[in-house]
Amino acid sequence: MKQVQALLFDVFGTVVDWRSSVEAELKELGAKHGIEADWPRFAQEWRTSYMNETRRIANGGEGPTNVDIMHREILDGLLASPEWSFIGPRWSEEERTEINLVWHRLKGWSDSTPGLRELKKKHIIASLSNGNIRLLVDMAKYADLPWDAVFSGELFQTYKPNPKAYLSAVHYLGVQPEEVAMVAAHIFDLRAAASLGLRTVYIPRPQEEADPNPENIKSKANGGEVDLVVSSLTELADILNR
Amino acid sequence: MKQVQALLFDVFGTVVDWRSSVEAELKELGAKHGIEADWPRFAQEWRTSYMNETRRIANGGEGPTNVDIMHREILDGLLASPEWSFIGPRWSEEERTEINLVWHRLKGWSDSTPGLRELKKKHIIASLSNGNIRLLVDMAKYADLPWDAVFSGELFQTYKPNPKAYLSAVHYLGVQPEEVAMVAAHIFDLRAAASLGLRTVYIPRPQEEADPNPENIKSKANGGEVDLVVSSLTELADILNR
Repeated sequence: MKQVQALLFDVFGTVVDWRSSVEAELKELGAKHGIEADWPRFAQEWRTSYMNETRRIANGGEGPTNVDIMHREILDGLLASPEWSFIGPRWSEEERTEINLVWHRLKGWSDSTPGLRELKKKHIIASLSNGNIRLLVDMAKYADLPWDAVFSGELFQTYKPNPKAYLSAVHYLGVQPEEVAMVAAHIFDLRAAASLGLRTVYIPRPQEEADPNPENIKSKANGGEVDLVVSSLTELADILNR
Repeated sequence: MKQVQALLFDVFGTVVDWRSSVEAELKELGAKHGIEADWPRFAQEWRTSYMNETRRIANGGEGPTNVDIMHREILDGLLASPEWSFIGPRWSEEERTEINLVWHRLKGWSDSTPGLRELKKKHIIASLSNGNIRLLVDMAKYADLPWDAVFSGELFQTYKPNPKAYLSAVHYLGVQPEEVAMVAAHIFDLRAAASLGLRTVYIPRPQEEADPNPENIKSKANGGEVDLVVSSLTELADILNR
């Protein structure tokens, strides 16, 4: 990791806690209409469809490369589905527009801002997210994320894990792949980065890993596949800034 | 200006003082070899050729869309020219590589960082420069420029004043042109932005305006063509944050 000049961060789940913020706003909008529902499941379905859609498009499928548009299409689909149709007719156009922007208003994990501030002192820190630029800019202001640069799949007309997303970021940073580390709570993201020569940092976050055995994701020093496993961004800063 | 959500900043000359930094490093490298030369004129020729080259490519000409490469090509051309050939043979490849990066190490004007910090509280602030992304990221760290986003002609495969540069930045910000203001010390930049519907802020800086009568550049309220004329970014913050 000593030659690493720049760190690219996955954002949803890795730097910000999308789950609690989205659940809370859904619950609040539901309460306004006297609706009780399994909001955690609604939030998870919204998120899961997003993951599936971005993956499909990353693999060459057709679809929006702006996540605001994608989130809205998925939201409308959920609200029209039999399971959630008791909610759909009660949420107006304005309310759907507003709740769709909850993804711009996500809180950072408690270690995110202090960790990024420390890492920024000796490294270039940038997002590499599938979120669109405006979403990432709003989120950075809301959650106080001091990015040096905001990279998005939107800029490169694809999504992670398409190689073009990682290689475009490396290109604009003017470095070699091995001089960049990808930081993520999702092993699929790190596997894609590693296959292109980037270094990898895994940071487990609650309920983020799709792999059924996240405890098996280990550093190379411990017989695993990633370069580092850390429990927080402040720990990562302690290691890299040594 | 009340509907303006985002400010796009020209950088070289507008936010940072390229002239003093470039002159000082040229002089220092000259002194190392015992060379006396008209470094202010050398710096101006380097800058003028850059302006001409970016303009030519913005108009559809062929050439590098990475300014590090362009700066180096111009530097090598100058050092090979009869006028500066007494310097050329004495500067090594390593020294040329290093002096070429002086454009990453430019100081902000004294009002730039405090002004940007204030403006950032109520607006999205982003660069919109012809400099390449890595250059702008290095410069932001060096000069403490707290951008929310770094936009560069490099991302859009063109240079200002090509309309694509302005319209791409507006697109990624997810706003209408009239919700964005371009801030620059160069009227050509503001004229291009205004023709696309952006708002315009002119900020005179020493020796930056190519127009022979910069005092004739006035706000619309004073019979001129730009939306605002300010003497500093802190003044701009005072006006917009009111």
